[in-house]
Amino acid sequence: MASVFGNALKVSIFGQSHSPAVGVVIDGLPAGFKPDFEALKRFMLRRAPGRSRHATARSEADEPEILSGIVNGATCGAPLAAVIRNTDARPRDYEGIRDIPRPSHADFAAQAKFHGAQDVSGGGHFSGRLTAPLCFAGGLCLQLLEAEGIVIGAHIASIGNASDRPFNPLGEETETLRRLAESDFPVLDSARGEKMQSVIDEAREAGDSVGGVIECIVMGLPAGVGSPMFDGLENRLAAAVFAVPAVKGIEFGSGFAGARLRGSENNDAFYTDGCVVRTETNNHGGILGGISSGMPILFRVAVKPTPSIALPQRSVRLSDKTNVQLTVKGRHDPCIVPRAVPAIEAAAALALYDALLSNEATV
Amino acid sequence: MASVFGNALKVSIFGQSHSPAVGVVIDGLPAGFKPDFEALKRFMLRRAPGRSRHATARSEADEPEILSGIVNGATCGAPLAAVIRNTDARPRDYEGIRDIPRPSHADFAAQAKFHGAQDVSGGGHFSGRLTAPLCFAGGLCLQLLEAEGIVIGAHIASIGNASDRPFNPLGEETETLRRLAESDFPVLDSARGEKMQSVIDEAREAGDSVGGVIECIVMGLPAGVGSPMFDGLENRLAAAVFAVPAVKGIEFGSGFAGARLRGSENNDAFYTDGCVVRTETNNHGGILGGISSGMPILFRVAVKPTPSIALPQRSVRLSDKTNVQLTVKGRHDPCIVPRAVPAIEAAAALALYDALLSNEATV
Amino acid sequence: MASVFGNALKVSIFGQSHSPAVGVVIDGLPAGFKPDFEALKRFMLRRAPGRSRHATARSEADEPEILSGIVNGATCGAPLAAVIRNTDARPRDYEGIRDIPRPSHADFAAQAKFHGAQDVSGGGHFSGRLTAPLCFAGGLCLQLLEAEGIVIGAHIASIGNASDRPFNPLGEETETLRRLAESDFPVLDSARGEKMQSVIDEAREAGDSVGGVIECIVMGLPAGVGSPMFDGLENRLAAAVFAVPAVKGIEFGSGFAGARLRGSENNDAFYTDGCVVRTETNNHGGILGGISSGMPILFRVAVKPTPSIALPQRSVRLSDKTNVQLTVKGRHDPCIVPRAVPAIEAAAALALYDALLSNEATV
Amino acid sequence: MASVFGNALKVSIFGQSHSPAVGVVIDGLPAGFKPDFEALKRFMLRRAPGRSRHATARSEADEPEILSGIVNGATCGAPLAAVIRNTDARPRDYEGIRDIPRPSHADFAAQAKFHGAQDVSGGGHFSGRLTAPLCFAGGLCLQLLEAEGIVIGAHIASIGNASDRPFNPLGEETETLRRLAESDFPVLDSARGEKMQSVIDEAREAGDSVGGVIECIVMGLPAGVGSPMFDGLENRLAAAVFAVPAVKGIEFGSGFAGARLRGSENNDAFYTDGCVVRTETNNHGGILGGISSGMPILFRVAVKPTPSIALPQRSVRLSDKTNVQLTVKGRHDPCIVPRAVPAIEAAAALALYDALLSNEATV
Repeated sequence: MASVFGNALKVSIFGQSHSPAVGVVIDGLPAGFKPDFEALKRFMLRRAPGRSRHATARSEADEPEILSGIVNGATCGAPLAAVIRNTDARPRDYEGIRDIPRPSHADFAAQAKFHGAQDVSGGGHFSGRLTAPLCFAGGLCLQLLEAEGIVIGAHIASIGNASDRPFNPLGEETETLRRLAESDFPVLDSARGEKMQSVIDEAREAGDSVGGVIECIVMGLPAGVGSPMFDGLENRLAAAVFAVPAVKGIEFGSGFAGARLRGSENNDAFYTDGCVVRTETNNHGGILGGISSGMPILFRVAVKPTPSIALPQRSVRLSDKTNVQLTVKGRHDPCIVPRAVPAIEAAAALALYDALLSNEATV
Repeated sequence: MASVFGNALKVSIFGQSHSPAVGVVIDGLPAGFKPDFEALKRFMLRRAPGRSRHATARSEADEPEILSGIVNGATCGAPLAAVIRNTDARPRDYEGIRDIPRPSHADFAAQAKFHGAQDVSGGGHFSGRLTAPLCFAGGLCLQLLEAEGIVIGAHIASIGNASDRPFNPLGEETETLRRLAESDFPVLDSARGEKMQSVIDEAREAGDSVGGVIECIVMGLPAGVGSPMFDGLENRLAAAVFAVPAVKGIEFGSGFAGARLRGSENNDAFYTDGCVVRTETNNHGGILGGISSGMPILFRVAVKPTPSIALPQRSVRLSDKTNVQLTVKGRHDPCIVPRAVPAIEAAAALALYDALLSNEATV
Repeated sequence: MASVFGNALKVSIFGQSHSPAVGVVIDGLPAGFKPDFEALKRFMLRRAPGRSRHATARSEADEPEILSGIVNGATCGAPLAAVIRNTDARPRDYEGIRDIPRPSHADFAAQAKFHGAQDVSGGGHFSGRLTAPLCFAGGLCLQLLEAEGIVIGAHIASIGNASDRPFNPLGEETETLRRLAESDFPVLDSARGEKMQSVIDEAREAGDSVGGVIECIVMGLPAGVGSPMFDGLENRLAAAVFAVPAVKGIEFGSGFAGARLRGSENNDAFYTDGCVVRTETNNHGGILGGISSGMPILFRVAVKPTPSIALPQRSVRLSDKTNVQLTVKGRHDPCIVPRAVPAIEAAAALALYDALLSNEATV
Repeated sequence: MASVFGNALKVSIFGQSHSPAVGVVIDGLPAGFKPDFEALKRFMLRRAPGRSRHATARSEADEPEILSGIVNGATCGAPLAAVIRNTDARPRDYEGIRDIPRPSHADFAAQAKFHGAQDVSGGGHFSGRLTAPLCFAGGLCLQLLEAEGIVIGAHIASIGNASDRPFNPLGEETETLRRLAESDFPVLDSARGEKMQSVIDEAREAGDSVGGVIECIVMGLPAGVGSPMFDGLENRLAAAVFAVPAVKGIEFGSGFAGARLRGSENNDAFYTDGCVVRTETNNHGGILGGISSGMPILFRVAVKPTPSIALPQRSVRLSDKTNVQLTVKGRHDPCIVPRAVPAIEAAAALALYDALLSNEATV
């Protein structure tokens, strides 16, 4: 039941890093929706490798083939299925890791669960490759949300100890978000961005990797979407975002910093211009009691450093239970944060569009 | 669909702060399980108010009545339903907040969603009162997990800027966890605990409130439980933990701090004594690829300061859209973190026991 | 996971025949709905025993207590929980059946599943008593459907070999359905009803029981509700209706009789008055491809004869695996069909209101 | 949400009659299972058209391509995705039916739901073509069940008014079931089968079609699988079986005939040989209280006559709301019952294997 998400929408993601294909089935999309497939392709390109100097050289066409659900360019109410072929499969590179798990990869946990049956090639179903169908599905939801005036944007908030300026919690210009979406290395402050890229370069040169933080903003979500308790927007967004490999934390609004504050500092006073009600600050990150307040949704996601590094590491040979040294071969991103940005946007879009579709009515 | 949780287990929580009762239905418990109701009562008492100098004076009996699912002291395979009467209901205190929402409470978002139909008394279904049935259900799961050798413990990691020592990521003694479970103010270092309590006292004296962080550890969960993608342990734990009111962030293992590290620093090397495979460090918080690694599960939760403070605040009168000053009446916890500790343990127990029950087999 | 139903609505039913109470939690009702509790009580009274000469003498108050979800007489958006106390509990009557299962009751299957942990008193969770909370939940859905112009009615189509006239597949008058709802023994043709009641009387006098068929009609459901494949109206209605104890079959429209016909006989020609499109006949029972056609929904449900009979029967003593003779004690309905009528209406209302709430939109 | 089935298993079916492909994603299969793909192919061939003189001439390769979830011939724990290309697509044949719905097809209901966005070619997602991925998924479940000693068989119980002998409710030989599985026209009595085939021939010659009944038996399912109320075996089987197009009724054991009996006739007495407990008769169809009794599961399914007939029919032109005469073009099965047999077995296998995987344990 690992790979199905949603209430009103059912998104079923499949594939492994080196299986014939990865793909997704989306059940519950409204009929009559005409996706902008060119825009979707541009969105998916943002997560594709080989795009910048920080990404792996493996080239993937990432050309989704629509198998069902679209007639004459529009959704027909039947499940939409799309597959993306894995053209650059190199299963040979990975066979050794079945016996010697790579530190901080899923190899060991998968072995414990599947007792050797798991696909180890390139991480199998745990691979970042699975963010391709996630971005396909999320990219469609982004378009559906945009048609409702809801825009999602994200930037690299920090790489290692180098950080961008944060989003204005009271809102960002749509233009700014569009500019971020077009950038290879989406930051708000380009000078800071240069410094952040240097941190990545240094890690690569050292045969090492580095983590970072992604900040995401959602503009235009009306107040009143979501639910208390288990189906709140925080629960749903978290459940979606942790599907992106390497994510290890999420915080909304002031988050962990807010936990150090007093109520008088962290509370967001309401005010009105006689028409709309807003808050003066946005420490609540646009969500109160699991329900949107009408202020921008704001959350930050911690992405761990890529576990694949060129440096030698200590591991265990499982077959004879001995301690060994391991050097992970192959080319790997020294930092996956830039490529994870669209995946976070996609996960957020899935969660929010599903919340919108399944929002209970009043009589 | 707000208040139902679980895959193999279905936990349905109901009630409002001042409805006749709060309660829970748990469907899918194994038959023949004999709960220790005395231990459950002690567990639930940890979240009850009026227990320490930091909690509200409202006294609640919190005596659950079992309506079904138990025969001769054991689960009979039918859904277990329990209700807890709300004996100290004071609906009058709250009627004003329908028109003037309290900053950083759910009042405004609920009004936007339910258009005035929502129960405003004491926060209605958004109240911390709902953690009583959550603790009932989670307390049963804690016992079921313990029967499998799995123990969950938590402590107050920080209050405002004052902090306890962290859990040893490689594991804590069961005795330490038991001591925490018996404490009114569960900390690992009692001297630091005194300082943390002073921070709460200062906030109360100032008519203010203060937030904090809870750290939770799970010992004994075997490797191989969980799933990749949407149903990973991080996704499930997050989806459960955000059901506890005031939680605004969660991080696993090194979390946000790990996002500042290099891979060579954050990776957890494997080693073996020829028998068991463990990691030298535990920055992964016991979860790799959504699946348990056999190391302790470790996560930290950010709890915002109680939004109810005695200080005057700015808000809006919704009926005529004017800006007003609001003073929240009634007695409120200056810090809910101590009472949230068992709720976090309960949410974690629900998520993990459900993951255990629904863990796929190999043939 | 046995006792939770619904997609947009989550209905969680609990209780055993002799537990302190039976009840239901309904999550996902629209907020602001004001149930007519008097009408609901009248509806529930239709399934209550002791009402006619054909029902058991056990008297049940069946007075539901609302524990949550209602404020000032209207739903507040939080889960609605209701409990009905079991006042006339006589657990002693049943203890013997743990060892000697009653033929065609659930006793033996429950023993095989729960290994003795199951509640045997009065059938435990398998009891017809559980149709009380089902009727509570379904009764609310009936009112919500009626507010949309959708009316559900049912009658006793046959008892043994004596049968009523069938519903007009093209529709019945609302007045007719109202009259059925007010009757102790709902039939369309009262003369035939007398004959059907005689069949029950004869069975009772013989210490025996008798089964029957219930026919249900749904008027006013607009075309376009439902889904193909697994979530079609037939799938949903069947999944709900088989929750009523003793139901062993369901057929839609011409059903099994239609399977004997040719296409030219069974096909329903379309026609129009220039305004509305209807079918000349209704062999499809108002459902095509899992989706409503706008014609009345029509289905028939087979109810087996009550397995509790006064006649001696052959069974097995499980403890020593010997063949024994068993005489079931206690008072039992010689025919539960009349009391099952509102339960079938309730199940249909749950399934259809849920289908309505979760019907996908077009853009 | 139409096309996703299962609790422990999640089966997501996609595709339309003339989309590039149909297919299925199966999430939750146990890892390490080695499907017999040759046997699967033979099973799928049973539903393929063009196989006997009663089926359409359209030839479909029906060669499933596995896209993910299989490594070295065994399931790897990741979702198994398979696609079957639609090679013989002829979208032109169908465009007219968007405006003039075919009687007793889903065309009109789909138009009401999707407002013209639906795929009309060949019935779109409502097509019998979708039983190909259903048979793929169900065929795998049949193999998994068989490994547990559980065998499912089905035969054509009747075509029009001509009928086969029924299954022996106390059980059939495995050899008999194997023979049925190998037959183009699976019946128990071949002489009766000849008569049944004549009924089909006559209908074809008349430009008409004919319906029938399929009887299904499940041998070897142990007692104790299933659940009371909404998740009983009857509920699950019905919810799965109504996914097969043209199914309009289902009955278990004595079903509708049992509803005419007295309890003393319909009850199934228990007996034992001192070892196993069985029932003397099997009017309960192997299910009591939603749970298996250990006796064979027996159910019968009503299949309506193929709505596509060569004879002229009355319909409506939706665009100008006028009454018109319609002649459905193209080649169609005069009777789909033979091809529906494996689809019913597949649906039953899905439902039962899912029930087996999600059967609650006792402690």
